[in-house]
Amino acid sequence: MNYSLVPESEIKSRIEKLQMQLQKKGIDSALIIQHVDLFYYSGTMQNAMMVIPATGEAILFVKKSLERAKRETMIETLPMPSLKQFPDQLMERGIYLQKMGLELDVLPYGQYARIQKVFAATELVDISPIIRAQRSVKSPYEIELIRQSAKVAYEAILEVPKILKPNMREIDFVAEIEKFVRLRGHIGNMRLRAFNQELFLGMVVSGEAAAKPTGFDGPAGGEGLSPAMPQGAGWKVIRENEPILIDIAVAVNGYIVDQSRIAVIGELEPQLEEAYQVALSIIKETEKNARPGTLWSEHYLHAVKMAEEVGLKDYFMGFKQDQAKFLGHGVGIELDELPVLAKGLDQPLEVGMVIAIEPKFTFPGKGVVGIENTYVVTENGLQALSYAPEEIIRIK
Amino acid sequence: MNYSLVPESEIKSRIEKLQMQLQKKGIDSALIIQHVDLFYYSGTMQNAMMVIPATGEAILFVKKSLERAKRETMIETLPMPSLKQFPDQLMERGIYLQKMGLELDVLPYGQYARIQKVFAATELVDISPIIRAQRSVKSPYEIELIRQSAKVAYEAILEVPKILKPNMREIDFVAEIEKFVRLRGHIGNMRLRAFNQELFLGMVVSGEAAAKPTGFDGPAGGEGLSPAMPQGAGWKVIRENEPILIDIAVAVNGYIVDQSRIAVIGELEPQLEEAYQVALSIIKETEKNARPGTLWSEHYLHAVKMAEEVGLKDYFMGFKQDQAKFLGHGVGIELDELPVLAKGLDQPLEVGMVIAIEPKFTFPGKGVVGIENTYVVTENGLQALSYAPEEIIRIK
Repeated sequence: MNYSLVPESEIKSRIEKLQMQLQKKGIDSALIIQHVDLFYYSGTMQNAMMVIPATGEAILFVKKSLERAKRETMIETLPMPSLKQFPDQLMERGIYLQKMGLELDVLPYGQYARIQKVFAATELVDISPIIRAQRSVKSPYEIELIRQSAKVAYEAILEVPKILKPNMREIDFVAEIEKFVRLRGHIGNMRLRAFNQELFLGMVVSGEAAAKPTGFDGPAGGEGLSPAMPQGAGWKVIRENEPILIDIAVAVNGYIVDQSRIAVIGELEPQLEEAYQVALSIIKETEKNARPGTLWSEHYLHAVKMAEEVGLKDYFMGFKQDQAKFLGHGVGIELDELPVLAKGLDQPLEVGMVIAIEPKFTFPGKGVVGIENTYVVTENGLQALSYAPEEIIRIK
Repeated sequence: MNYSLVPESEIKSRIEKLQMQLQKKGIDSALIIQHVDLFYYSGTMQNAMMVIPATGEAILFVKKSLERAKRETMIETLPMPSLKQFPDQLMERGIYLQKMGLELDVLPYGQYARIQKVFAATELVDISPIIRAQRSVKSPYEIELIRQSAKVAYEAILEVPKILKPNMREIDFVAEIEKFVRLRGHIGNMRLRAFNQELFLGMVVSGEAAAKPTGFDGPAGGEGLSPAMPQGAGWKVIRENEPILIDIAVAVNGYIVDQSRIAVIGELEPQLEEAYQVALSIIKETEKNARPGTLWSEHYLHAVKMAEEVGLKDYFMGFKQDQAKFLGHGVGIELDELPVLAKGLDQPLEVGMVIAIEPKFTFPGKGVVGIENTYVVTENGLQALSYAPEEIIRIK
């Protein structure tokens, strides 16, 4: 492993694609501030603001560290002026701003208000839908990075039989997995775009604890360590004959793969075995159906129908009132990218979209079973990027 | 370790203190949305919104999980209505809102705009300064939780001689520390209030890599693993006779202690040894001076003066243009709480404030040396909460 820079051709093509959208919408310039988007469009993740005019060269204004930004991006870098001097400095460079695009889905109100004040004559519009749509379609370079994460997630699953022992605590189990993936380049932080949502590695949880609902917008929960971290692995001891969910998101080079597998020490009761088979059949059906042009929503609705047909609707993606209302979500540099396979989202799948699909069933008092793979949409349908064996990991 | 709920008396007292401030400022109600503030005022961290009227009972409106919220808080919980129905539902309960306080420092603009639309007749004001000021002063219960984190940070430092070997990579070293603190209840996620800032455990970095500047607003940097995680531990091999910075933030039960120590395999060159002694003398001087009523700024200015007197001003808290402009920062549930010991911040220290003080020196090409402890302000001055031995950890 080494510290590899983002290729210039990637950055150039990303900026050009955004510029085309800006031109189409009559937006003079984008002002990129969120660190993940900054990384996406510049290749460096410094304390900075990036101006991408609809035509012409982008500029990265860097507060800290300018030296590092210069090393990591081919974009022109300049020291960040005070916000007050910012409009003048842009005008001096021939960048006029009647209509400027901001990431209004994530930009804090306070920061927005300060920008609005100095750009008083500029109309500020939300370009987060444009950015999110662009980022949802991955380049071959990005897909290759997700494959690197998938390799680590695969190797982690192969480790499970060596690590997992009856009567170890969830935290003992997950700490070993965390160490394993860190040594192979997992960056640690899991980036989510949604306000207030956070995740640490994933949901490595067992038995009834896995079925405990949380504030996290996902199908599995977990008891967690304390009310200050009320999700994921906790102090619970892992026992025999209960389902152990190993839902881990691994990000090497920043790009996330999301993968879930089930393990058991001993045997699962028939109801859980059967539900796991239903989850498998849902994911296989989705693999078959999710071709370019099919709607995000239809795959969710079809999965719900399949669950309903076998009497498992109430258990699908969480239990009753705590159900997550989706079947899959885009992954990339953030865990909650587009597309979202959910009711009402009637946009078409496009070639290059990367989606984590995760049919799961929650049985209160018993646990969670299901599966999750990360796929890329190709001309021929879904191609799996995650590739750990899909059978239940059975430890005797 | 177990899953301990926040005592009711804590929640009650926190809400009362906020209500006093709301009354003082003529604000009818606070609408708390950020998950950390939600945890602080309710004791549970669910997907929810909390209404705290200036007088009367608070209500927690919960989207997910209502069941879990009910188990974890004594505040009245209700299912979250649609945003559109929200004003009516508040009116039905006798809560009128001419002036409502929001966390405008962190609330995304998009969410603000949706709230503004449904509360069209309500004046929305920023209560983040009130919240941050309140949270900066810790209760004995909160200080006890920080002590629990300090114990783990102490034990981690005692482990260092067992873990640290020449020619191991930074990532190998930090992965062992991460596992060690996780097994003792570290929650993993490090919460920061500032937009775009993130930290994973801390800065466990060595030699010239430690001196590499980053976008993080702190004195130490690190090469990191990739441009997508351009700070902290990286692939660099730890060599003999270079300073190894072990700057770790540990959060058990959500409450953070921040502590830095220096290790070396072999010997440090005299310049670095001397700079470490200067850092020690700065922290000892601050311990002595930082009594209640002294100004946040004066301790920073005094530290800069001490560094200047020995010719180390350019190396203090980062090198030249990449210097961090503070000596210390509040810690609690977030790593970047108040107070901030920095120029221009002329507020007085108060009893109960908890501050991480971290004089450090950066030598490009060589590394970072310095020390950091977390303290509580008492009537008699600073009392250390972190308590790992302060000598350089020397491994032969």
